[in-house]
Amino acid sequence: MRYTRPIALMCSLVLSASVFSAEPVKTLPGDITLNQAQQVVRAALRHAETIKVPMNIAVVDAGGNLKAFARMDDAYLGSIDIAERKARTARYFNMSTRALGNAAQPGQSLYGIEATNNGLAIFAGGELLIDRKGVIVGSVGVSGGTVDEDESVAKAGARALSGSTR
Amino acid sequence: MRYTRPIALMCSLVLSASVFSAEPVKTLPGDITLNQAQQVVRAALRHAETIKVPMNIAVVDAGGNLKAFARMDDAYLGSIDIAERKARTARYFNMSTRALGNAAQPGQSLYGIEATNNGLAIFAGGELLIDRKGVIVGSVGVSGGTVDEDESVAKAGARALSGSTR
Amino acid sequence: MRYTRPIALMCSLVLSASVFSAEPVKTLPGDITLNQAQQVVRAALRHAETIKVPMNIAVVDAGGNLKAFARMDDAYLGSIDIAERKARTARYFNMSTRALGNAAQPGQSLYGIEATNNGLAIFAGGELLIDRKGVIVGSVGVSGGTVDEDESVAKAGARALSGSTR
Amino acid sequence: MRYTRPIALMCSLVLSASVFSAEPVKTLPGDITLNQAQQVVRAALRHAETIKVPMNIAVVDAGGNLKAFARMDDAYLGSIDIAERKARTARYFNMSTRALGNAAQPGQSLYGIEATNNGLAIFAGGELLIDRKGVIVGSVGVSGGTVDEDESVAKAGARALSGSTR
Repeated sequence: MRYTRPIALMCSLVLSASVFSAEPVKTLPGDITLNQAQQVVRAALRHAETIKVPMNIAVVDAGGNLKAFARMDDAYLGSIDIAERKARTARYFNMSTRALGNAAQPGQSLYGIEATNNGLAIFAGGELLIDRKGVIVGSVGVSGGTVDEDESVAKAGARALSGSTR
Repeated sequence: MRYTRPIALMCSLVLSASVFSAEPVKTLPGDITLNQAQQVVRAALRHAETIKVPMNIAVVDAGGNLKAFARMDDAYLGSIDIAERKARTARYFNMSTRALGNAAQPGQSLYGIEATNNGLAIFAGGELLIDRKGVIVGSVGVSGGTVDEDESVAKAGARALSGSTR
Repeated sequence: MRYTRPIALMCSLVLSASVFSAEPVKTLPGDITLNQAQQVVRAALRHAETIKVPMNIAVVDAGGNLKAFARMDDAYLGSIDIAERKARTARYFNMSTRALGNAAQPGQSLYGIEATNNGLAIFAGGELLIDRKGVIVGSVGVSGGTVDEDESVAKAGARALSGSTR
Repeated sequence: MRYTRPIALMCSLVLSASVFSAEPVKTLPGDITLNQAQQVVRAALRHAETIKVPMNIAVVDAGGNLKAFARMDDAYLGSIDIAERKARTARYFNMSTRALGNAAQPGQSLYGIEATNNGLAIFAGGELLIDRKGVIVGSVGVSGGTVDEDESVAKAGARALSGSTR
């Protein structure tokens, strides 16, 4: 092992110069890939089909920007916006939209927060996407059924990435 | 050159038929027609005149896009936006705005939904337009009186299309 | 004359009390009525049918607020907004949108004006509605064809109100 | 009275089948399906990979509402909005965004149109989606490369639906 390091380092130094002169790296290493986002969408679609509820499914990356989206046939038109908003809201506050919503009820500490950020979604259906290393790499928002159904579909999507049942 | 004009014209006339038949169809068959939308508006106007309340009446198509609108004399200026928003909201969630509003009360599952979609109208007065084949072809939104008055006018409009008293 | 005044005044006092106690007048006397706005829309529709171009037609009142609207079958979805905007723009500057557009070309005095008012429409198809007394009571905006076609339909609508061919 | 409940329940159970079949149809027959939209996205992705340009790809339905979206790794964040806007713009005016852009140059008839509809995209990369029956069922917008590259990817997507090379 000890001999490989310097060689690897040299290679890396040689390459880094050319890589830099070539062009900067455009995406943070470890951010969600399109491939991963599509896995999340597919897993969510499968669960939505199982429970027979037409859903809108949106995935955003670690920066909160849209990465993938799918609207099932017969899903609400008004849920396009809500699915995207749930995904964005979850990542904006690093918690599920259900948790945020609980804190935003009348009399609670975050009452009124939904009026910020050009409108947040503060009901269940937005879940964080956490990879196998425990890094938040984005979030998924689902809208189209009851909030419990939305949440179950979002969680099915999230599990596709974390590889667990949490 | 002077002989080419008539020939070009003839070609153009001959071609125009086939070109016309090859032109893509611009509206999905079955979407609400202007004729239908105006029937809805007229029926709503008649009911509004009967109950003597000046109303704003908006009709959107299956895609949620405005198809017809009328503001009665003395109707609120602020209800132009509300009538359009009620119509859009009903189609966005395939239910009356009264039904949506019930689910959006504090403590209910959709509390806060009005902050999505750049602002929804979650009080009565938006009704689906369902044709005689049972297809949702748009919706009608009414604003200008109490929400019960608005709803009765919207329902009068919707009945003009469904041909029923549902 | 001196005997008529008190009598007129008495009548006026008697009437004003009942009028006032009834409720304030909600619309400026002389503003466009829904009946007039629908005449404008119908005349515009007839002309659009004659030239066989599906149009969006919007009428605003003297305050620039939407009074009536109709989208013909197959008319552009993007022209809903443009028809309303043309109508509003014409009334906002009391000139046709063609005239305003000429003054907004690169190098002209109003270059860039289209970015104000949340977006103006600065191409032909918006015309003032002037009643038979010479009062501007609103405007009509038309969109769906070439700007010349739009303008001809808007002018057909405007003539229905002015009763002239100007 | 106590006997009516079970009977009502039975009726309700019996009816629920017919009620279900009587539930209104939520999507206009013939509108783009998620399956079709995903075919368009996949075909566009394949072409983008071939020319090695990371792209944002958006598909809207006949009503101009988002149906599917994918952002390739390293594609511009600013192109999320542009891809969606190109798709919407193409459907709003039933033409490619290149064709619309040509008519919107300074001195041309539609100069300034980009300020309408809350901002249109008037450069190449938005193409209509026309099915095999010749019906416009939506559109695709692509952004991430030069406008020529964007357009070639959008056209590759559109061909997946029309089954032709037009």
